[in-house]
Amino acid sequence: MSVSASPAPLLGDRLCENGFECVKILRATNDAHGGVIVDLKEAMDSEVFATLLRSSLLHWKKQGKDGVWIKLPIELVNLVETAVKEGFWYHHAEPNYLMLVYWIPKTGCTIPPNASHCVGVGAIVLNDKKEVLVVQEKRGGFHGIGVWKIPTGVVDAGEEIFEAAIREVKEETGIDTEFVEVLAFRHTHNSFFGKSDLSFVCMLRPLSSDIKKQDLEIEAAQWMPFEEFADQPFNQMHEPFKYMIELCLAKMENVYDGFSPRPVSSYFVEELNCLYLNSHDLDKTS
Amino acid sequence: MSVSASPAPLLGDRLCENGFECVKILRATNDAHGGVIVDLKEAMDSEVFATLLRSSLLHWKKQGKDGVWIKLPIELVNLVETAVKEGFWYHHAEPNYLMLVYWIPKTGCTIPPNASHCVGVGAIVLNDKKEVLVVQEKRGGFHGIGVWKIPTGVVDAGEEIFEAAIREVKEETGIDTEFVEVLAFRHTHNSFFGKSDLSFVCMLRPLSSDIKKQDLEIEAAQWMPFEEFADQPFNQMHEPFKYMIELCLAKMENVYDGFSPRPVSSYFVEELNCLYLNSHDLDKTS
Repeated sequence: MSVSASPAPLLGDRLCENGFECVKILRATNDAHGGVIVDLKEAMDSEVFATLLRSSLLHWKKQGKDGVWIKLPIELVNLVETAVKEGFWYHHAEPNYLMLVYWIPKTGCTIPPNASHCVGVGAIVLNDKKEVLVVQEKRGGFHGIGVWKIPTGVVDAGEEIFEAAIREVKEETGIDTEFVEVLAFRHTHNSFFGKSDLSFVCMLRPLSSDIKKQDLEIEAAQWMPFEEFADQPFNQMHEPFKYMIELCLAKMENVYDGFSPRPVSSYFVEELNCLYLNSHDLDKTS
Repeated sequence: MSVSASPAPLLGDRLCENGFECVKILRATNDAHGGVIVDLKEAMDSEVFATLLRSSLLHWKKQGKDGVWIKLPIELVNLVETAVKEGFWYHHAEPNYLMLVYWIPKTGCTIPPNASHCVGVGAIVLNDKKEVLVVQEKRGGFHGIGVWKIPTGVVDAGEEIFEAAIREVKEETGIDTEFVEVLAFRHTHNSFFGKSDLSFVCMLRPLSSDIKKQDLEIEAAQWMPFEEFADQPFNQMHEPFKYMIELCLAKMENVYDGFSPRPVSSYFVEELNCLYLNSHDLDKTS
């Protein structure tokens, strides 16, 4: 949520209009969508907070504001109940804070939903001898079923997909790689507290060969001949894994184009970001 | 988080071992990773909750449990402060509940992060006359800058990318479509409370032509000749939009393959889900 630079009353400010009224309200900044954000940092008694919140809501209503966001650090957990009693509800939470929201107008609430997806990567690292880099994990769904799988992991907020793939391979196996392409991605639902998952199947080229496996999560790691990897009954029995084998084969025969990242600047976001597209096809046309 | 069927003590259960001990603990179910989940529904005094929580934590520690999850509906907001005082922190929140977590072992916490991404779609709907379906929005970043843009929207948790693209076009313009391909996707960061965005640029084929625009969000909608759409200074000035134009051209010349969805069944998730891949290339090999 971007925050405009327009001035806003401070906590403890007394709003005095025509000498008639003096009320303390909460410090807030305007957001870019007609609402206000309160980023509370000071410890406060919950009754003091309740009084301030009521005055503030009246003031923002008069100003014609719509959405009201209150960010409460976990240290201010004593104020959560008060906010909810005043009509706020939860928007999202991170380990160290809770974000509450309130919608002032009588008309339809346009507060956006919170994050909906977890994002993961699977990394196919294939060397010149047609061997695949595979691991066995110490925990999780693959543990104890004897399957040799490709390194997988979570893409963190703020991290690029290609960076996550390279990082996971390095962490789990010690192998350095360069990114080739996203071969496919899978969309699954209801996987974690009702959220959805997007998992990107990536191809990488190894830049080193000596495996140094990570001890915490990885039971074993090795270079496995592609045929042996493909022939594992698990990979033959489960559709997404069968597709992964087909994609590998097509890629080895050089007849498959996935998506590769291009850095682009954005109109709405300051940082450079990535557009993933079929570079091979696009370059043919230009 | 999947929940195993193993029995667990109920709220109000007294744990009696060898006739020596009787303590009430919270009702919990085991998760699949060695932890427990408390899905609290009953209203409760916060001091009663504190006592129950302490006994429960001792019990789960003795059992060798690791992660403890407590789901508190917003109606039980009076218990949030107690949980935090006992060492719990926030995991995630939805409008109607807050999920708190605690890690019993002294060793590294492996509680997974919450959802990290918002997911969006942009829908390029191109008809046989080489006209693009475009809209002007009543609010948001494109409002008031005179740009005719493609319909865009949010992919909800649980919704397929191709479904979201078809739905957004229908909602904003009344046009029925069928999905063709994902042409590209863009990954941006720090866009909303530190989360990242994945936005899928999709191509769709129109199945109807009469526009009925939605009034709430859409100022205007029309079929615009492709050249006119492409020549808008905004599209020429901003890299991701320039790429979108290039992708359209390549697609019109039939020299670009994106990713299309294939339904697959999954080993870990019961429902059918979708794998998006370059079907054109893959079908050539098989």
